[in-house]
Order: sequence, then C-alpha cells, then structure tokens
Amino acid sequence: MIKPKAISWFYENLPDAQIIEDNYKDIIKKNYSLSWFTSLDTPHIERIETLISKWADDNEIYAIKRLKAEWDEKNDFELWLRFDLTVPLARYVAQYEWELVFPFKRQQIGKVYRWERPQKWRYREFYQADIDIIWNSKLPLFADVEILSTIYNALKELDFWSFIININNKKLLSWYLNSIWVDEFKKVIWVIDKKDKVKSIVPMLEDLWLNEEQINHILSYINIWEIRNSSEILNFFSTFEDEQLLEWVAELKYLYENLLNIWVEEKYIKINPSISRWLNYYTGTVFETFIEWSELLWSISSWWRYENLTSNFSKNNYPWVWASIGLSRLISILNNLWKIELWSKTITKVLVVNMWEEYLTNNVQIVKYLRSIWINVELYLDSDTKIQKQLKYADNKKIPFVIIVWEDEIKRWTLQLKNLVLWKQSELKIIDLEKSLS
Amino acid sequence: MIKPKAISWFYENLPDAQIIEDNYKDIIKKNYSLSWFTSLDTPHIERIETLISKWADDNEIYAIKRLKAEWDEKNDFELWLRFDLTVPLARYVAQYEWELVFPFKRQQIGKVYRWERPQKWRYREFYQADIDIIWNSKLPLFADVEILSTIYNALKELDFWSFIININNKKLLSWYLNSIWVDEFKKVIWVIDKKDKVKSIVPMLEDLWLNEEQINHILSYINIWEIRNSSEILNFFSTFEDEQLLEWVAELKYLYENLLNIWVEEKYIKINPSISRWLNYYTGTVFETFIEWSELLWSISSWWRYENLTSNFSKNNYPWVWASIGLSRLISILNNLWKIELWSKTITKVLVVNMWEEYLTNNVQIVKYLRSIWINVELYLDSDTKIQKQLKYADNKKIPFVIIVWEDEIKRWTLQLKNLVLWKQSELKIIDLEKSLS
Repeated sequence: MIKPKAISWFYENLPDAQIIEDNYKDIIKKNYSLSWFTSLDTPHIERIETLISKWADDNEIYAIKRLKAEWDEKNDFELWLRFDLTVPLARYVAQYEWELVFPFKRQQIGKVYRWERPQKWRYREFYQADIDIIWNSKLPLFADVEILSTIYNALKELDFWSFIININNKKLLSWYLNSIWVDEFKKVIWVIDKKDKVKSIVPMLEDLWLNEEQINHILSYINIWEIRNSSEILNFFSTFEDEQLLEWVAELKYLYENLLNIWVEEKYIKINPSISRWLNYYTGTVFETFIEWSELLWSISSWWRYENLTSNFSKNNYPWVWASIGLSRLISILNNLWKIELWSKTITKVLVVNMWEEYLTNNVQIVKYLRSIWINVELYLDSDTKIQKQLKYADNKKIPFVIIVWEDEIKRWTLQLKNLVLWKQSELKIIDLEKSLS
Repeated sequence: MIKPKAISWFYENLPDAQIIEDNYKDIIKKNYSLSWFTSLDTPHIERIETLISKWADDNEIYAIKRLKAEWDEKNDFELWLRFDLTVPLARYVAQYEWELVFPFKRQQIGKVYRWERPQKWRYREFYQADIDIIWNSKLPLFADVEILSTIYNALKELDFWSFIININNKKLLSWYLNSIWVDEFKKVIWVIDKKDKVKSIVPMLEDLWLNEEQINHILSYINIWEIRNSSEILNFFSTFEDEQLLEWVAELKYLYENLLNIWVEEKYIKINPSISRWLNYYTGTVFETFIEWSELLWSISSWWRYENLTSNFSKNNYPWVWASIGLSRLISILNNLWKIELWSKTITKVLVVNMWEEYLTNNVQIVKYLRSIWINVELYLDSDTKIQKQLKYADNKKIPFVIIVWEDEIKRWTLQLKNLVLWKQSELKIIDLEKSLS
C-alpha cells in the first residue's frame, strides 16, 4: 500500500475551491477576449536552447528526460519545463513571424514551473494569466493603455476586494538617483525594491556608502506617493528642466490621463515613482498591483514593456508590452485574508431523487428538460438508497434544490420541488420549473 | 541567434486553429458540467510511487528533476509527468477520501505526456477530456448510462461529423473464446485488438496454434456487428443457457435500452462484441468511439469500469466508471479529413479605425459600449497608420465589421459601419449598433 500524497508546493484544490478557481479563470479569459486578445496554448515543455538565456535562473529550473532514454540518446537534459509564458511566446513569435498578423495580441492562462525554497505564496507549479501585444514596428503608447485597462477590467469583475494599480516609469527613479549623485544605480534600486520586505532599508543604503542627505532624499522620494496624489507627483517631476525627463513624464501622464478619462476609477490607480522591478529585461513603464489594506505586499499583477524580446530568435525587431495576473497567488492571498467564501461543493443546482427503477424514464425526462434549458442537474445514481440518505447527500453537497416525484405526482403530471435553503416545498408543473429555480 | 523551433510531436496551434480547439474544449466542459461533473485540476507532475504500478509503461515516461539538484538531494528521478488523468485521480480520491462526498463525479480536461515512437496521431503531449464516477459502495449500472450519455451529448454538440459509439462487455468475448475451447485468452484478445491495424489476423491466430474451425468462429464473431443490428446481437447471446453470460447480456441490454429510450439516437450507438481493449485494469463494459466513414480506425473516445482502482492507495474499495474524449486526436483526425474549417484568425468581431489622436476619446467610448454588451471589439492601436492599411489589417484577420468615425459623424453623433463580408457601408447611431452587428 502506497501512502497517497501530492508533491510539496504543488497545489491542488478540493472541489469547492476548484469552483472558485475555475470561476476566476473564466472571468479573466472573458475580459481578455472582449479586448481581442487571441488565445494561445504552447507546450509546457521547451528546448533548453529556447529557455537558456540571460533571463533564466538555473536554480529554479525543472529539467525533463525520457526515463528509459536509449544509449544513443544524449545523456544531457535537453528539455525544460517552462518557467514563464513569455520566453516561449518570444520563441513562438519568431518561429511563426510570417504566419502571424501584427499587431499580434495573445492571451494565455497556463501553469509555469519554478523550483523555489519553501515559503508562503510561492508555489512550484502555478497559474499565470498573461496578455501581450507585439508589433513588428513601433508600438504606440496606446498599447499600454489597452493592456492596463484590460487587466483593470478583469480585476474589477473578479470583485474580490480593493486593489491598487501602481504605475511608474522605471527611468524616473534612475533619473532621480542621478540627480542626487548616486552612482551605483543597480545596487540602490535592488535595495529600494526590498523596501516592503525589510524593516528599514537605511542600513543597506549605508552599506552602499550613501551619505545621510542622499538617504533622506531617497526615503522622502519613495514615500512621495503616500502623501501626494498622482497629479501632484506628475507636477513635481514637471518642474525639472530636463528634456528627457519631461518626455518620460509626458508618457506617464498620457497613460494616466487616458486610463482615467475613459476606463479606470481614480481610486484604483496610483502613480508611484518608487516601483522598481529588478528584472533587467523591461525598459519602460511598469506597474505592480497590490491588494489594499493587505499587509501582504506581494504583487498580484504586473506589467512592463520590452524594446525587443525576440532578439535571440529573429533578426526582426519586435517591441512588446506584457501584463499578467498571478492567478494562483491572488487566490492564495485572498484565502489568507478570508476573502473567499467557498459557497458550494458542487456545480449542481438541482438533485432529482431516484426512488423506483420503474420511474427512471420519468425522472430522466425531468433531467433532460432541465439540461436543455442549461440548468446543471443531477439524478441520484442509485434507486436503492433511502430518500433520507439522498436528501442528506444534497445537503452535504449544498445543492439548493431537490425534486421528488411520487406516484401521485406522476398521475397529476406534477412534481415536488424542495428548496433546501429556505426549507420550503411546493408542488408544480414541469413547465413552471424554470422560473421557480431562478 | 537561436533557430526557434518547437519540440517534435509536441503540437501547438496558430491562432485560427486555437480558436477551434478552445471552442471544442468549451463545448465539452459545458456538457460535462450540465451532467454535474465537478472540475478538478491536479498537478501535471506526480511522485514516482504514485505512478509506478502495473499500469505504467516505463518506456513512455518522462521523468523530471531539478536541474541544479544539490549534492544531498537524491540523484534518482522521483517525479514524473503524468501519462494519464486516471492514476492521479486514484491518488487524489484516496488522499482526500474523508473530505469528498460520494458518489464523486469529476471532470478534467488536461494535458498528459507519453513518449512514443513518431507516428501519425500520436502526440507526446496531448489533451484528454475525462469524466469519472467513483463511489465508496456498489456503483449502480445507471452510472454507466450517465457517463455514456454525457459523452454522447458532448460529441453530438461538437457536431463535427458522424460518429459511432461501439459498446461491449469484455467478458462476452472471453466467454465466447472459452466456448470454442480457446485456452490462451489474453494472447488471442491481444490479436483481436489488432484487427483494424493489420491486413489479416489469421496468421497471428495460427501462430497461437488455433485450428481452422476456431479461427473461422473468431472471424465470424468479430464481424457479427457488421451484419447484425444491436438487438439481434443481444438476442444471439440470450439463446445460450449460461446464467453468468445471461447476467452480462442483461447488463448490456439495460445500458443499451436506457440509452436508446431516453437519450441517444440509434444510429450513433452499436453493440459490438469484438471491442477488446488490451488494458488490464478494466473489468466490465467498455466502449470505443470511431468516426464514421473514416478509414482511420483510431478511437476518439473510450470508457470502462474498474472494480477497484484505488487498491494501491487505500484500504477502502472504490468502484469506478471512467470515460474520456481524446481531444487532441479527435481534432487532428478531423483536420486530416478536412472536416475543420478555420473560420477566423481572431475572436474580434469589430475593428474601430483609429485615425486622429484627438478623436481617441470618442473611439474608445464606442469600444467601451460594445464591450459592455459583450461584443469583442478592437481599436486599431496606432493613429498614425493610414486607413487603407487598417482596413487591410481587418481583412487579413477576417474581422467582419469595421467602424469609422469622421469629423462629420462626430458632429451628427453617428458612425460609419462597414460590413467587410457583404462589402456594404451604412451610417447609423451608436444605439443601433447592437442589432446591426447581430
């Protein structure tokens, strides 16, 4: 006998939690589709040559091999499980560049694999829900508006809790550090990125030989978004006489104002010049989304822009905007905040009690009718089970309605409908079922 | 520069084919849900102890390992990619046996992995769409009716081409072989299972030392379904005076008649006593579904019953009915038969032409309105692109409608709607859009 167990940090749901995850997936997919992102489904496995590049962190990789590889097959691993959906897409775009119509917009909701040391909200197999816009010529700033508003629409419809989308252009931060004579940008940005995860970044900045004045400037800079609203922040940067800076600020302003004027409620969006993703392959504006009032400062959705992600695969230049909702992480954070209510163990709305084999045809007709009007319905499988036990089954599974047909009802062409929530029972005709169930 | 390429025998779709696959998946999922199969999503990876058992074929296995496994981690592979959705479910049922409510019905549409020698319609990563009913006590025969009718409903709504569900009880074949004094059942059944893949099975039967009379009996037995209809076949078996046989025939008859009376059109279903799946873990009735008039005798959907699949994991007994649609194979066979029409490269129904940055707000309002009534709409991303090029883009992607707003229209609160299929253009108010697009 083998003790059955799943693999640590690979999650799986019980049926009630799976209903929630499916529902989240459907809402995200519907919103992505409404904004014309076409769906893709690349393999979970890629060649090592595809994934190996400046982006991959070897430590996190799962490699794959045929178990009974023959002697003449190479011993080295040549296949890896994908660690994100972006690198496979870069390969896909380059491979099919002559078949695709640009601007190319894709969505993909899929599992990715990363070996990580055990820690909260870091699964080793988890869902990402990505959207991307790729063009073979200059990608207009409106693409960023489209990407962001799509993410906003999806998060809004998920209706889980308040969230705030923090927007920045990473170059603003570099520019500011430069203006206060900081040399080691990268290291300082790395420290700033840690600000929500450590008590104070001051000792870390001191270690980088920054003086007190510089440190105070940095501290007030990264807090500016808390004390100033987005327009004030944009105005603050507009006061500097630096043509390059003003161009970046104008971009940010275009983005912010277009979002605001047209799509997005102000309270969900915030210019935050301290957002500073460490990842080195994005080049422009970025966002991170946090759940409001949560002390868990894990981003649930991010976005950035690359000038040319396919450079490893194609001679052609493909500018690129990407955004993603971290579906598995979002759900796990909401669970932790007790914000997800498991409302049902089943997708069934109606249970038809099954008492006599000779009434089977009659019962199945009811089932057939309800399915024809798109109501999920279940006929209890076994006619030998006592009615009390069948009702208990409905109760255990939180099925809201039960239909019972006795001999008398068959004669009268009616049925008994029991509402298990309100604990009410009534006799009605089959044609009146639809409105009684809604 | 790396030449981008996918892995052989791992398939991926271009956007137009992906629209078809998504649509197939949605229809199958909807039908499974209507028949109250709750959705599960177990990991793609399982422990070796879970998968290793009498069922696994070592040769087909992909094993997984952390690439940079540390010295103190074991060198042996401990994780495998799943090769079906059934063994992981057996593990799941045993692991959560006290949390699940029985009868437990699940659906899962997911990828599985099998290394196989390159051959047509055998991918190494492919989708299966499974349904299962599991109980912790005797599983009534009605479960088989429910499973089969659900598969039938899904295939019917896919509306691809004609199909025939072939039903059998494997024991009939054994019984018949016994009645003609054949000893080596398993080997003979293995040969019979090959009947559609070789020119003649006679030489193979001769190799098993069967005499001419026995061979003739077998040949006429496996052809009986072609010359007799289902009722005649049931009657044929009913003439034998063997209590055990009659019980099996009665089961088959119950199944066939219930399907026929209630759900299934006669032309889609056939009693075929030659169906003889080789797999050794099913114990009762089985089916295989073939596409009619196709010479490609690859099953696209199968079903069987186990008396106790979880025996390796739990002391408790769980009888089990399983069925599956081989989604990837079905689509690939239909493609080969030219039965799938790629009708669109996009899910977009309307393109809004984008000509002047100053009209952006106006255009986006149209987009927003259409999305609010669930119409997939696309605003061309770049206002600098000439209108001819934007129209060509819509044409390339086969987007059926285009909306154009000139200055005049804005003044009149109207828009121009161009139907690219009928090549017609008309001026209308935004509130009249919905009916013009339907």
